[in-house]
Amino acid sequence: MNLQPFNLDEDIQKKIDTKTKPLGALGDLESIAFKIAKLQNSLMPRLLNPSILVFAGDHGLAKTGVSAFPQDVTWQMVLNFLNKGAAINVFAQQNDIELKIIDAGVNFIFSKENELIDQKIGLGTKNCLEEDAMTEQECLEAIEKGKESVRLIDREGSNVVGCGEMGIGNTSSASLLVSLLCKADIEECVGRGTGLNDEQLENKVKILSQVIKRFGDRERTPVEVLKAVGGFEIAQMAGAFLEAAELGMVILVDGFIASSAFLVAGMINPKISENAVFCHKSHEKGHALILNHFKAKPILDMNLRLGEGTGCALAYPIVKSAVAFFNDMASFESANVSSGN
Amino acid sequence: MNLQPFNLDEDIQKKIDTKTKPLGALGDLESIAFKIAKLQNSLMPRLLNPSILVFAGDHGLAKTGVSAFPQDVTWQMVLNFLNKGAAINVFAQQNDIELKIIDAGVNFIFSKENELIDQKIGLGTKNCLEEDAMTEQECLEAIEKGKESVRLIDREGSNVVGCGEMGIGNTSSASLLVSLLCKADIEECVGRGTGLNDEQLENKVKILSQVIKRFGDRERTPVEVLKAVGGFEIAQMAGAFLEAAELGMVILVDGFIASSAFLVAGMINPKISENAVFCHKSHEKGHALILNHFKAKPILDMNLRLGEGTGCALAYPIVKSAVAFFNDMASFESANVSSGN
Repeated sequence: MNLQPFNLDEDIQKKIDTKTKPLGALGDLESIAFKIAKLQNSLMPRLLNPSILVFAGDHGLAKTGVSAFPQDVTWQMVLNFLNKGAAINVFAQQNDIELKIIDAGVNFIFSKENELIDQKIGLGTKNCLEEDAMTEQECLEAIEKGKESVRLIDREGSNVVGCGEMGIGNTSSASLLVSLLCKADIEECVGRGTGLNDEQLENKVKILSQVIKRFGDRERTPVEVLKAVGGFEIAQMAGAFLEAAELGMVILVDGFIASSAFLVAGMINPKISENAVFCHKSHEKGHALILNHFKAKPILDMNLRLGEGTGCALAYPIVKSAVAFFNDMASFESANVSSGN
Repeated sequence: MNLQPFNLDEDIQKKIDTKTKPLGALGDLESIAFKIAKLQNSLMPRLLNPSILVFAGDHGLAKTGVSAFPQDVTWQMVLNFLNKGAAINVFAQQNDIELKIIDAGVNFIFSKENELIDQKIGLGTKNCLEEDAMTEQECLEAIEKGKESVRLIDREGSNVVGCGEMGIGNTSSASLLVSLLCKADIEECVGRGTGLNDEQLENKVKILSQVIKRFGDRERTPVEVLKAVGGFEIAQMAGAFLEAAELGMVILVDGFIASSAFLVAGMINPKISENAVFCHKSHEKGHALILNHFKAKPILDMNLRLGEGTGCALAYPIVKSAVAFFNDMASFESANVSSGN
């Protein structure tokens, strides 16, 4: 049911302000409600069949020791997702979120009989310390596959989508993307990922600085940067975000790596931020730069740094609450409550 | 099912650390899981029949113009709660939380046929600018009634309880309690409540300063302070917290006013903080002092300032997520995933 009121912004704000509560007393929930109502062009917005897409991919850079975990953990965790043992499985189930696991380019051949969605671009990216992570064709194909996965859930009736990821080495990709796209010092963008000690962190910074040096100062388009230092899962997430915005969906943005994909997408189409609810502030240092770029204040700030879309799944009940108060609370008038001042 | 392991703390931490995720990657969720497992003395903690008790009461001080709303709003909002039109109704229903509405001392005679729980101590407190808000007997009776309401939900099988409140003027009571119990300047404890403008805020500070002056420097027990400047709903919440801790329940602490009651209770029995999960950081200035007293980092920080227990209801899914990952996630061993470093 889409109402087409005369002045939507005013009508939305009026609906919020006449609820039985002091003006503004629901804080950030009110901004989320406003955003979703405006996006859906409706005074009765609906969140339907929420879905989280988890994209997995491997990174050539992982062989340089930028992660505390071996590369095999990527495919092992994909099996863990399929067996419903990971954090994202637990949170998605708790909050009635449909979960799709996507092989965007893991360095492993999975058997075909499981529920994994095959969007494999290759057996991991190339090592971006030596050459571009992807060819242009691979990068564009990855973006397109990401779009396809969103069209799939759109056909299934979903109008809310979050993206999560798994990929050993992908905080490095995210750090490089942020550094290059936000023109920030690489040191400002690097964190401990899955748990590097001081020495390992120093090595990570050193290696990523070398990647940056290889670049030179030439201006690059977002896709050129993505191709050079991104990952298959990051490129597919970027595509997914672009398509979700195209389809008018509410986009749940997870932590550092998903946000780096959102940054790429947002530089291709800045309007996608109108669809976005930032779900949590990651413990990873570089995330703050992305949030700052979008002037975003995420829902949660709980020192999470797991990825997988867990921030989306955890924050989703709060997004639902925003829509619920907007749709279901009484107004001062309907409840016969005196309004203030 | 309560296991009684040899060293509970170690066993809980080990269970958290062997889940398929980097060490510490679930951030504050891990501390919440630890706390609840320890409280329940169990490696399989359970959250059962969560309840929120909303205590309503009126304040004699309200006639001095410390609130932007007329006192009638207290009883009008109680009817709104009973008709399921308020924010707390919407959020409690969304998250399957049982809601009980309690008349702790509203200045209104309610009809008996509704679901309101009658624990009325009187028709509002006295004006604490002129005399103590309650007699000692009223104060002790209020604490006792608060305890009774928790015994009620305990008998109904609940082991998680949040407290909310409604009472025009009660941010003033809370500010006075914090100022006196934390020995902080009253200016540091006063906020805009339901939405005072600058002039009204100045008046509020002036009036609360006069109340403080009336006090002199004599040391007072927490109950003496509560009796002098508290409210019936605040005293009942304090009793509820004390009893919930006694019964080993998980306590969900809401915003500024509920926290001021928790402060009183915590000064009577400091061990109750072992039961507490602080749900949100209120927009009200004085709340930070209470959080600081308990060294608490609340789950949400969304500029909420509504009360009613809304912070508890909104944060509850996150508390559930903490218990869910602890109980339901696979371990590295069970999922055949290589662990790090």
